[in-house]
Amino acid sequence: MDLTKIVRDVPDFPQEGILFRDITPVLKDADALNEAIKQICDQLKDIEFDYVLGPESRGFIFGVPVAYAMHKGFIPVRKPGKLPCKVISKKYDLEYGSNTLEIHADALKPGDRVVVVDDLIATGGTSKAICELVEEMGAKVVCMSFMIELEALNGRELLKDYNVQSVIKY
Amino acid sequence: MDLTKIVRDVPDFPQEGILFRDITPVLKDADALNEAIKQICDQLKDIEFDYVLGPESRGFIFGVPVAYAMHKGFIPVRKPGKLPCKVISKKYDLEYGSNTLEIHADALKPGDRVVVVDDLIATGGTSKAICELVEEMGAKVVCMSFMIELEALNGRELLKDYNVQSVIKY
Repeated sequence: MDLTKIVRDVPDFPQEGILFRDITPVLKDADALNEAIKQICDQLKDIEFDYVLGPESRGFIFGVPVAYAMHKGFIPVRKPGKLPCKVISKKYDLEYGSNTLEIHADALKPGDRVVVVDDLIATGGTSKAICELVEEMGAKVVCMSFMIELEALNGRELLKDYNVQSVIKY
Repeated sequence: MDLTKIVRDVPDFPQEGILFRDITPVLKDADALNEAIKQICDQLKDIEFDYVLGPESRGFIFGVPVAYAMHKGFIPVRKPGKLPCKVISKKYDLEYGSNTLEIHADALKPGDRVVVVDDLIATGGTSKAICELVEEMGAKVVCMSFMIELEALNGRELLKDYNVQSVIKY
């Protein structure tokens, strides 16, 4: 199954000049959803790891079923103020402005091996911030797996110290 | 496996006097995550439906793996401005203020049968708004399945016209 034929291209979203890759038709088609999860799992099948990490909110969409399918635990990385216990935060710069991510302070312990799953890698800024959070806790990112990679934005260069995988490349 | 022993109680979150039921320990434990998904799927196993609907962002956490496990498609209901194509919106009142949910206008067609999956039912306001969105599109909510039900908040009364299921009741 060619998932690129099911992803929907939406011009000028969220702003003029941006071609948005809409994954909702993949999610809606049971066979395509199954195939997407299977392809991410295939990328991880030879990797030893303890947990899947996924950032709010589209990282939840692929991260949790991958964790479920591979019988691993899932750890959410969330926007500020959403996690109820003590957190570790990471503020990172965007092209305009900044963003903050949080993880529960007791979510990982030194030596834990995690894979990061998200829907999309663009510039890689969000993924890099997640890696820094994980490493501050003494744990290790052993793979990052994305549903879609926007190659022109060169996120792979920012993440050159990591094993970066993607299902669909544009 | 008793999932209530794995859910973590956090007093005074998000505000004083609220006892927050934290599902992150369930997600982190592969066996517990598996059991939670299995119990939701068990509630749906005799129901004929086409799609799982889940609201952003914690509805994604259980909704997508349930769709995956039951080989159904998943349709996201999102916060305003996130879905790239034409949407149908529903504004609904909260105790203080209001919230808006959106669904792609082409996500459902008349006669489609959907189940709504979310992490929690409290007053039921969000779930009711989702039902109204689905019905405006001519589709039908045939079951709503929640990981956690806060019985004292009586969401079941607001949703008395629907088949409401929950895994853990407090």
